[in-house]
Amino acid sequence: MADSEKTVHDVIIVGAGPAALAAAIYTTREDIETLLFERGVPGGLAAVTDKIDNYPGFSEGIEGLTLAAELQKQAERFGAVIEFGEVTSIHDEGKIKRLETTSGDMYAKAVLIATGSDYKKLGIPGEQEFYARGVHYCATCDGAFYRDKRLVVVGGGNSAVQEAIFLTRFTTHIDLLVRSSIKASDVLQRDLQRLVDEGKITVHLGTATDEIIGDPENFVTKVIGTKDGQKVEFKTDGVFVFVGLDPNSQFIKSTSIKCDDIGFILTDEHLRTSMPGVFAAGDIRSGATMQIASAAGEGATAALKLREFLEARPHPVQN
Amino acid sequence: MADSEKTVHDVIIVGAGPAALAAAIYTTREDIETLLFERGVPGGLAAVTDKIDNYPGFSEGIEGLTLAAELQKQAERFGAVIEFGEVTSIHDEGKIKRLETTSGDMYAKAVLIATGSDYKKLGIPGEQEFYARGVHYCATCDGAFYRDKRLVVVGGGNSAVQEAIFLTRFTTHIDLLVRSSIKASDVLQRDLQRLVDEGKITVHLGTATDEIIGDPENFVTKVIGTKDGQKVEFKTDGVFVFVGLDPNSQFIKSTSIKCDDIGFILTDEHLRTSMPGVFAAGDIRSGATMQIASAAGEGATAALKLREFLEARPHPVQN
Repeated sequence: MADSEKTVHDVIIVGAGPAALAAAIYTTREDIETLLFERGVPGGLAAVTDKIDNYPGFSEGIEGLTLAAELQKQAERFGAVIEFGEVTSIHDEGKIKRLETTSGDMYAKAVLIATGSDYKKLGIPGEQEFYARGVHYCATCDGAFYRDKRLVVVGGGNSAVQEAIFLTRFTTHIDLLVRSSIKASDVLQRDLQRLVDEGKITVHLGTATDEIIGDPENFVTKVIGTKDGQKVEFKTDGVFVFVGLDPNSQFIKSTSIKCDDIGFILTDEHLRTSMPGVFAAGDIRSGATMQIASAAGEGATAALKLREFLEARPHPVQN
Repeated sequence: MADSEKTVHDVIIVGAGPAALAAAIYTTREDIETLLFERGVPGGLAAVTDKIDNYPGFSEGIEGLTLAAELQKQAERFGAVIEFGEVTSIHDEGKIKRLETTSGDMYAKAVLIATGSDYKKLGIPGEQEFYARGVHYCATCDGAFYRDKRLVVVGGGNSAVQEAIFLTRFTTHIDLLVRSSIKASDVLQRDLQRLVDEGKITVHLGTATDEIIGDPENFVTKVIGTKDGQKVEFKTDGVFVFVGLDPNSQFIKSTSIKCDDIGFILTDEHLRTSMPGVFAAGDIRSGATMQIASAAGEGATAALKLREFLEARPHPVQN
């Protein structure tokens, strides 16, 4: 295709979760033409969350699907277009970025990467079935639903130990299932020991987690594991799994966009990546909090930064 | 009062706007006891905004007062307490911060400053009366309400010139009223000249803005000014004023908390100020965007950072 024939979008956003949709609300409302690329379902992790209690503005909480739909409608109301497909690489061609996608090459003056992260899964029976209805991956999000309840926590790293300690604010008892041995900092292990002594946490080392069982009304009732070759069972009201995060950044692996060791994209305080004209916001960003509010806020900020970049001068609000 | 008698709060938040309330939603939901100090009305600038079109999650927009009330109800639902009064200074007493307030000294293990910023006003008749109903201070927030309308923009600095240029995306014509002369960067002045040549902006140098006039149904109809000692009138559908921002940081002037030249609080990427245990979020922070979504997002992030600080170890979500 000749250069003169190709469509160059003002902004292409990779992803259509809360950060992406918040950014699109801002850009399109300011008449910056914006195309979003989504490989799954718009709304990101919000769309697969049952009840969201802490997104600011909904005093009684909101269903995840409803929030996702509202975000999408709001962005589309101002003219955002969502295309379904996958971006497989980004190339810096000077003033224009070329995105390889499953729909062919696409071009944009500026790009926002907002592909988010996924919680690593155990991949065991019952995990998918009871997702968000007894099986959780975020203590800050869902811990408060387990006041005076019993929990199983799976994992043995810093996250698992710290979040298990945190969850004792709510729970009567926690069984901590650790496949091999605890790999957490000394200070965390000391705090853990204190809670073990107080009877609030029981640690089960060398214990594989095999299956999550619930009753017909879809509540988790127990977890089945294996220890020393023997089947073991843990009665529980819910399961929190902390075995790591998977940032959705595989598609930029061969580009000049820099990531940290785990694969989160590195940005400066203006949400710029190491590729000029390419920004990142939300849970794909190194330092992200895995909170919808933070992601949406960063999306809004990113939109102002995109506008600055397209106008090639700083946003003037503070001068 | 003896040390043993004083109440030490887990967290005191100075302010009760969107950043403050979002933070309080998070802290109190995690059983971190939190007291907010508000000298005016909860909700901050959101509470005095007529219609908010770009807060992510409300596809048809939301009334400012409604959003403010929802944020307050949500925080109070989890146990946040709002006290009315003014914090006049903060003292670092090691593990405890002492806040001088109009209700006497208060103590906290950690403090979040979320006092926001105010737009500088002209202080002329009609400005207060038509606030948010024809008189505006944020082009990103309210510019889109003026599609195919005529505007007056007041100011001559970088902000005024850049935002006037931006507003031409929407407007048929802009009168730019500049008290003395334009004080904007060369690149902005070049862009401005182009729009002047195209007839989209008329610049009125040496023009004082004296009064904003509206009709009985509360729409702005004209602006009255003075040029060369003569009364001048400008027909318009609205007025945007860009004469600077006033960060609400006077109360920390004599503390060790560092601000930039204008008075915005400097923070690191963890929202920490230069006083240990004191954090800042929202429009009081250097680099803030004056957007409710960004403020609320930072409030949520700040709450996680406060939790980290109180637990004296990093939030583990990414390890």
